[in-house]
Amino acid sequence: MSQTKIVLEESEIPTHWYNVVADMPNRPAPPLGPDGKPIPPQALGAIFPEALILQEVSGERWIPIPEPVREAYRLWRPSPLYRARRLEQALGTPAKIYYKYEGVSAAGSHKPNTAVAQAYYNKEAGITRLSTETGAGQWGSSLALAGQLFGLAVRVYMVKVSYEQKPFRRSMMQTWGAEVYASPTDRTESGRKILAADPASPGSLGIAISEAVEEAASRKDTNYSLGSVLNHVLLHQTIIGQEAKKQLEKVGDYPDVVIASCGGGSNFGGIAFPFFADKAAGRRVRLVAVEPTSCPTLTKGKYAYDFGDTVGLTPLMLMYTLGHDFMPPGIHAGGLRYHGDSPLVSQLYHEKLIEAVAVPQLATFEAGVAFARAEGIIPAPESNHAVRVAIDEALAAKRTGEPKTILFNLSGHGHFDMAAYDRYFAGELEDYEYPKEAIERSMQRLPKVG
Amino acid sequence: MSQTKIVLEESEIPTHWYNVVADMPNRPAPPLGPDGKPIPPQALGAIFPEALILQEVSGERWIPIPEPVREAYRLWRPSPLYRARRLEQALGTPAKIYYKYEGVSAAGSHKPNTAVAQAYYNKEAGITRLSTETGAGQWGSSLALAGQLFGLAVRVYMVKVSYEQKPFRRSMMQTWGAEVYASPTDRTESGRKILAADPASPGSLGIAISEAVEEAASRKDTNYSLGSVLNHVLLHQTIIGQEAKKQLEKVGDYPDVVIASCGGGSNFGGIAFPFFADKAAGRRVRLVAVEPTSCPTLTKGKYAYDFGDTVGLTPLMLMYTLGHDFMPPGIHAGGLRYHGDSPLVSQLYHEKLIEAVAVPQLATFEAGVAFARAEGIIPAPESNHAVRVAIDEALAAKRTGEPKTILFNLSGHGHFDMAAYDRYFAGELEDYEYPKEAIERSMQRLPKVG
Repeated sequence: MSQTKIVLEESEIPTHWYNVVADMPNRPAPPLGPDGKPIPPQALGAIFPEALILQEVSGERWIPIPEPVREAYRLWRPSPLYRARRLEQALGTPAKIYYKYEGVSAAGSHKPNTAVAQAYYNKEAGITRLSTETGAGQWGSSLALAGQLFGLAVRVYMVKVSYEQKPFRRSMMQTWGAEVYASPTDRTESGRKILAADPASPGSLGIAISEAVEEAASRKDTNYSLGSVLNHVLLHQTIIGQEAKKQLEKVGDYPDVVIASCGGGSNFGGIAFPFFADKAAGRRVRLVAVEPTSCPTLTKGKYAYDFGDTVGLTPLMLMYTLGHDFMPPGIHAGGLRYHGDSPLVSQLYHEKLIEAVAVPQLATFEAGVAFARAEGIIPAPESNHAVRVAIDEALAAKRTGEPKTILFNLSGHGHFDMAAYDRYFAGELEDYEYPKEAIERSMQRLPKVG
Repeated sequence: MSQTKIVLEESEIPTHWYNVVADMPNRPAPPLGPDGKPIPPQALGAIFPEALILQEVSGERWIPIPEPVREAYRLWRPSPLYRARRLEQALGTPAKIYYKYEGVSAAGSHKPNTAVAQAYYNKEAGITRLSTETGAGQWGSSLALAGQLFGLAVRVYMVKVSYEQKPFRRSMMQTWGAEVYASPTDRTESGRKILAADPASPGSLGIAISEAVEEAASRKDTNYSLGSVLNHVLLHQTIIGQEAKKQLEKVGDYPDVVIASCGGGSNFGGIAFPFFADKAAGRRVRLVAVEPTSCPTLTKGKYAYDFGDTVGLTPLMLMYTLGHDFMPPGIHAGGLRYHGDSPLVSQLYHEKLIEAVAVPQLATFEAGVAFARAEGIIPAPESNHAVRVAIDEALAAKRTGEPKTILFNLSGHGHFDMAAYDRYFAGELEDYEYPKEAIERSMQRLPKVG
């Protein structure tokens, strides 16, 4: 019998998160304050609990997962690993294609892996309320779920254009008891500043981050929670890659290439970092981050210190960036719209230890539809970026006749993105390459450092 | 460690479907033709393949599942069984609550369990195209998926009001390559007849069935496929209850009560029938079908011969019915709107071997939200009916202090029903009891038999 789905028992949920910092050839560059000097970790105490700050700066290879977090993980983890046999057949490729499926969480994506951890540590620290931002709502809904599971109130600043056009993830957040506001709001200084300049602002992730950070910094009972970019967020997501390794071991396999879509980097880091550990130990494995041509942070951005938000409230991080005032083009259907990228992913890319590729929108939907028709699951538009490159790798193997084992992360389902599929079928989506000149202009507004 | 999720290996997918007919004290009453005489099975050959007709009339206890169907099942089966520990805690009940979760299929409900089987048998019989009806789209999307997996074209007549108000399941069907029409259409005699009488007809399940049956009956390459009601459909769904039994065995448990929502009966039959086998052998277990007060077929309908569709194209079946011209009230958010019920479920209820209860809409949403906040998963409105009664049973156990083991089927997720949750939160949903007088009027229009 040919196995389709490789499952693990609950007892096989990893007991530790893997910290890639321990295996990086160079220590990560520190975040800088407004004065250009490294900021002491405790300066983050206004918005993060100590446990997460310690994880943010830790060099330990293994960090234990608290039992209440593993208990929450059991609601959807271990997630299944699939062998995409029907897709292989449809492509006529000699390659073996595996995908880890994170859409089985109640929020429908990988995001709850870190949301429940962050909710737990904040709860332990006596915090009663979390503020955060969300774009299309994947992260906001994940934190709403986590807040509900650990008894924390959650307030979500949702990018206005998504709030209006994508009401169903908002309903999900409300079902899980969260408060949701269309950002920019007039509830924060940051929001009022943006609205003063542009009362019709559709909002952006950078603006919503400013609002959520401001709220957390100004209230003692409230902390801030971020769904990607930061070291501790990527750390929590390494549960994905660890499970995938165990599952592949069960069928005696190991990937030649690991592929994941990459916006802020938590999805990519989540599946790829545990394989980086093997790479650092000398094993051959390619790790490929996939981004949209309309927001080509790694492939076209500059490796520089920049703010994490639009208004400039966050510390400066050394990362690939398109500039903190980047506005994603309206024609882009999916997420992956963040101007920066995880400092860890950025550094690994800068040191040529991982690869990155940018793909145009239409090709990602084409891949997603082919995947859905072969495997059933309809992927999120973000995940379609990984599907595209996995298919391209499989087709390359077909041309060369080379046997190859491909692993990608199917980070979420597309149930809340069917309007984007509709637009694709109706021919209303276009490809878009973010112009070089716009990046160059933004680079002139990078904060001066040192 | 307390187990949350009981999983099975692919090799544990049942090898046979269970046919409840073998254990019923009385053989099912036969379907009748327009002349009031039992129709010979081969008369169904115009719209069904022989293999399914044989299953429809079989008295064999075990019917083998073809390997290609088990292969397709592996895309999402075995489905997980959860112990709802967080819900138990939230309710403060001594009862143990288990739920089988069928929302893991790519279509998001239990419906693909029979869709892939029907697609397989039709393909084997040389059929190239299936026609069917769908209300909100759960069944249509499941058949679209199954058609895609087995290489059959699928045409779906979707109830017009759903087609217009719920575009996302339509997009799903199109992603899987199906053609979808808003019913009533002007493509069939049945549709034209309805439109002549009421050009603004919002459509109904009964009308859409008429259209799909007519199309299949008039084309040699096309067969008809039904998502519930018929014996072979319930047969295919017994995979659910069989898996649940195996999973409960693994943790040494057995239910005192098995609960499922019931529209056409396939969800209820799917989880309950394998337990009926034990009941027939003398084991104590209650089997409870839950329906909406707005469509109270079992609890308020008449046990009589009636058509399966509105126009009167189908054979007459002995079942509980509200009358084949029943129009569901517009204020009802979820599915479970069919005027009749499975003849097998109807007969078991008529013979007092199973129970039925009708619950009002608001109480089902209240239960669904409580469930989502405890367990994470947001249930489909149909599934909320089962959640409601499971919670009621658990609260009864709390009052009496009685230990009790409850099993219910969470037949699908609510990702395509968030608009209904929105309306619930906005106070726009109402309770509705389908009036006795309306039922009595419909009863006068029942076909005369014998």
